[in-house]
Amino acid sequence: MKAVNLADKFALFKDHWSPRIVAQVNDLHIKTVKLHGEFVWHSHAETDEMFWVHRGEVTIEFRDGEATLREGEMLVVPRGVEHRPVAREECELVLIEPAGTINTGDAGGDRTVANDVWI
Amino acid sequence: MKAVNLADKFALFKDHWSPRIVAQVNDLHIKTVKLHGEFVWHSHAETDEMFWVHRGEVTIEFRDGEATLREGEMLVVPRGVEHRPVAREECELVLIEPAGTINTGDAGGDRTVANDVWI
Repeated sequence: MKAVNLADKFALFKDHWSPRIVAQVNDLHIKTVKLHGEFVWHSHAETDEMFWVHRGEVTIEFRDGEATLREGEMLVVPRGVEHRPVAREECELVLIEPAGTINTGDAGGDRTVANDVWI
Repeated sequence: MKAVNLADKFALFKDHWSPRIVAQVNDLHIKTVKLHGEFVWHSHAETDEMFWVHRGEVTIEFRDGEATLREGEMLVVPRGVEHRPVAREECELVLIEPAGTINTGDAGGDRTVANDVWI
């Protein structure tokens, strides 16, 4: 068993909005993703989703408010809750969600990417 | 919904080997715990367990080796694998494991603590 170094993982890629899996705990994947700009409004009917900021900051917009997360801060978006991540500067984010979770949730569309890429 | 700031959570307690829950993602709890010294050998037959170092370092001993984790590093101990955490200096650790997981696993004994304390 080998440790996963998060900074090393983030150094391996540059593109935005494409999550890479770095570990699995039971049926959940731990993913690294870089954000910059605005994502699409979406929700995940079947699962909660955890956002954890490794570097930078991200605002998670909701239909009735928003929460800004900075380095070392985390937020759980409950299943079924519409949200949109927005990062004015590049943000390194850790996601915790079940294996197979689609990045765009129920919204689909051309921002959808593969959900099974390990790094 | 409110962000959880990990440093703020760790500032709220001082004792060692008593995990506090800070968030829940589906059936998993995210816990903060401070370590210092040696824990007991144990395993969890039913679940993987993730260790994630927030500050300091910890060595996870296995029957056939060990892995040392430093700040920003994580390791998943698969279900059924005997392990023993050892921290020569105080270590702030994040645990990810199912709600209800017992800290001493199948070993039990007097190092067992409550598994439902939120902070």
